[in-house]
Amino acid sequence: MIAELLSVGTELLLGEIVDTNSAFLAQDLARRGVDILWSQRVGDNLGRVTLALGQALARSDAVILCGGLGPTDDDLTREAIAAVVGETPTVDPGLERTLRDRFLSYGMREMPERNLKQAWLIPSAEALPNPQGTAPGWFVRTTLDGAPRWLIALPGPPRELRPMWLNEAVPRLKLSPAALYSKTFKTHNIGESTVAERLGSLTDGANPSVATYAKRDGVQVRVAAKADTPEAAAARAASVESRVRELLRDRVWGEDDDELAAVILEKLSAKGQTLATMESLTGGLLGDLLTSVPGASAAYEGGVVAYREHQKAAFGVPQTLLETHGSVSAEAARAMAELAATRFESDYGLATTGVAGPGGSEGKPVGEIHLAVFRRVDGADTVRSLQFPPLERNWVRERAAFAALSLLWSVLSA
Amino acid sequence: MIAELLSVGTELLLGEIVDTNSAFLAQDLARRGVDILWSQRVGDNLGRVTLALGQALARSDAVILCGGLGPTDDDLTREAIAAVVGETPTVDPGLERTLRDRFLSYGMREMPERNLKQAWLIPSAEALPNPQGTAPGWFVRTTLDGAPRWLIALPGPPRELRPMWLNEAVPRLKLSPAALYSKTFKTHNIGESTVAERLGSLTDGANPSVATYAKRDGVQVRVAAKADTPEAAAARAASVESRVRELLRDRVWGEDDDELAAVILEKLSAKGQTLATMESLTGGLLGDLLTSVPGASAAYEGGVVAYREHQKAAFGVPQTLLETHGSVSAEAARAMAELAATRFESDYGLATTGVAGPGGSEGKPVGEIHLAVFRRVDGADTVRSLQFPPLERNWVRERAAFAALSLLWSVLSA
Repeated sequence: MIAELLSVGTELLLGEIVDTNSAFLAQDLARRGVDILWSQRVGDNLGRVTLALGQALARSDAVILCGGLGPTDDDLTREAIAAVVGETPTVDPGLERTLRDRFLSYGMREMPERNLKQAWLIPSAEALPNPQGTAPGWFVRTTLDGAPRWLIALPGPPRELRPMWLNEAVPRLKLSPAALYSKTFKTHNIGESTVAERLGSLTDGANPSVATYAKRDGVQVRVAAKADTPEAAAARAASVESRVRELLRDRVWGEDDDELAAVILEKLSAKGQTLATMESLTGGLLGDLLTSVPGASAAYEGGVVAYREHQKAAFGVPQTLLETHGSVSAEAARAMAELAATRFESDYGLATTGVAGPGGSEGKPVGEIHLAVFRRVDGADTVRSLQFPPLERNWVRERAAFAALSLLWSVLSA
Repeated sequence: MIAELLSVGTELLLGEIVDTNSAFLAQDLARRGVDILWSQRVGDNLGRVTLALGQALARSDAVILCGGLGPTDDDLTREAIAAVVGETPTVDPGLERTLRDRFLSYGMREMPERNLKQAWLIPSAEALPNPQGTAPGWFVRTTLDGAPRWLIALPGPPRELRPMWLNEAVPRLKLSPAALYSKTFKTHNIGESTVAERLGSLTDGANPSVATYAKRDGVQVRVAAKADTPEAAAARAASVESRVRELLRDRVWGEDDDELAAVILEKLSAKGQTLATMESLTGGLLGDLLTSVPGASAAYEGGVVAYREHQKAAFGVPQTLLETHGSVSAEAARAMAELAATRFESDYGLATTGVAGPGGSEGKPVGEIHLAVFRRVDGADTVRSLQFPPLERNWVRERAAFAALSLLWSVLSA
């Protein structure tokens, strides 16, 4: 099957939003062995959406439209599909009822009448339910010169589009679970070129392929193979996969969809242990990464953000330590990690301090960071000091937060 | 001028990278008054790149190609351009010298011969220097049926593409600095359809245009106008802009590049006042949003994340209050806001509590949230309780964090 992506929205052509939906769909389709040869973006213009859709339909088996399902006059995806398949939209009573109920359950006043458009349907379209929003999708089965064609219209917001694609569209398309096999290794404490050196000629292959990606939580290495069946693809990847695993063994913290914060919380929960944080540099980001994981409260007690200078002393970092070493120091990080564990009565304390910029601080340069883990049972501490490139403030903060999680992972895995 | 973007690379169609170059170029072109009606992505296939390029050239004045300028056999942008304009690439001696020197200066061994491709040129192309990498761009002047056409080939890596576009391509295209005027109003406490109702027929216009966007920090309304000069464009937008401003006056917290956290910190700094937070639901996100602003420490003291149930009591929320009302309650939020202000000796305290899900808590449903602001000078408090739709965990947390900032903004602006 050949699929084509058509993202609809003037905001895409104005660069106001980045088209992450296309990357998500492309990746998912590739995993299922579907080829994408073309991908287009068009603005909210009925003539151009219709033209692009017609062209896509002529050369691709399935066309996936993203966006343009909102309630306003600018949302034209339904009109374009109706025009291309030559049908007329009418309000579907069932969809209308669901839509009005949705508005009531949201505790809003009555549904604005313009939203009625979201209850439209054409004869060849089946509605795809959208538990995350008011716009149902459309799944259209049609033919072109006797050949079957599918048109799938999905809403633009990623949190609506993703579940609708996976739970509603994929089963209807009867896509194979995977004729493409892939395994991603997630590493830390190693740069992309060092990874490449370790992998050597392994990255030269095409099937299986081995590729590296620098991500915010570390370098990822992806092994992928294609074959006629999922089993054959996995078999084809097997020996390269195990060689990559062996070459990176000491640096891998997770695989595939693993998230570093979730992996850490699982490790703690499994042992009935808990964690608290004390943040300066990262200002709450560490807590945010941890609490973004469902069920975080099983292991995360909480934390303190001691942001302004004097708050570190107010929360117990000894004044003499701050005067001798400064609040951007390995010593301060160590004291903060201990305070976190003591204050929250947790098994581990994790702390960050450093200079995010734009300017330096206490005579320390932008990018200097200090991280510490304190283990309460035996008072053991582990401190790591790093000098990041003096890049953008939030790049430094984010890298520091992941480096802190990486340090804790190492301690928990030792 | 009408421009079209053509991103080249199989990795885009596999979803391995997100196409941020298109958003960057689109935004920059829009600012300069250039319309983009189409945007395409194609894989590393000479036939399809050539086909897409020919189609783009037929309907657009300028075609900007991103990617495909590397040294490998998969990098086919030069070949496609040469095919479309009917010329044959040859090695340019000047470019070859620069390229070989570049390799030497990188401290690398001799240039791999495959890189010689990066010294290719065709008669109608001018090379665009690339101080950030080895691939020069191409600036091609040609005609189609007597009408002038421009083809600009830029390298894929954003840190190479962006300066080449701004420093080399834009001056050659003689683009005006800005013939598009735009003003964005950022609102809170109002839904997209209510905004649309207030705006009425104002959204029907094309020039000036008025469009609404639902963003994570509230609904944005953008007024845009085009004209021959920046001044004329601003004049054209003026009356609609002031009507929109008037219609939304009570809901607007900022304009254009304003960020809610930054606006709040500025308000506080201007009065020499400070803020502290106590978070449960948002788990550090509120602190993160505030400290992502450069210079946040001028007004943000810090915060406490009292995530597990018993930590709220440990940090001073009265046990009787927790037993009577529960930790997900307006009363708990109020107590937390006061504790934040007292503990950090700040002028204001801001607190969040609620149920992020996936499951309910204390018999309260997912999406129930309580926010509070406490003002220390007079002990005044402002509490807001909301029921969000029971959507994805991090959607609820993010919306709650912005709702808390919105509440604080209202108190500071009263």
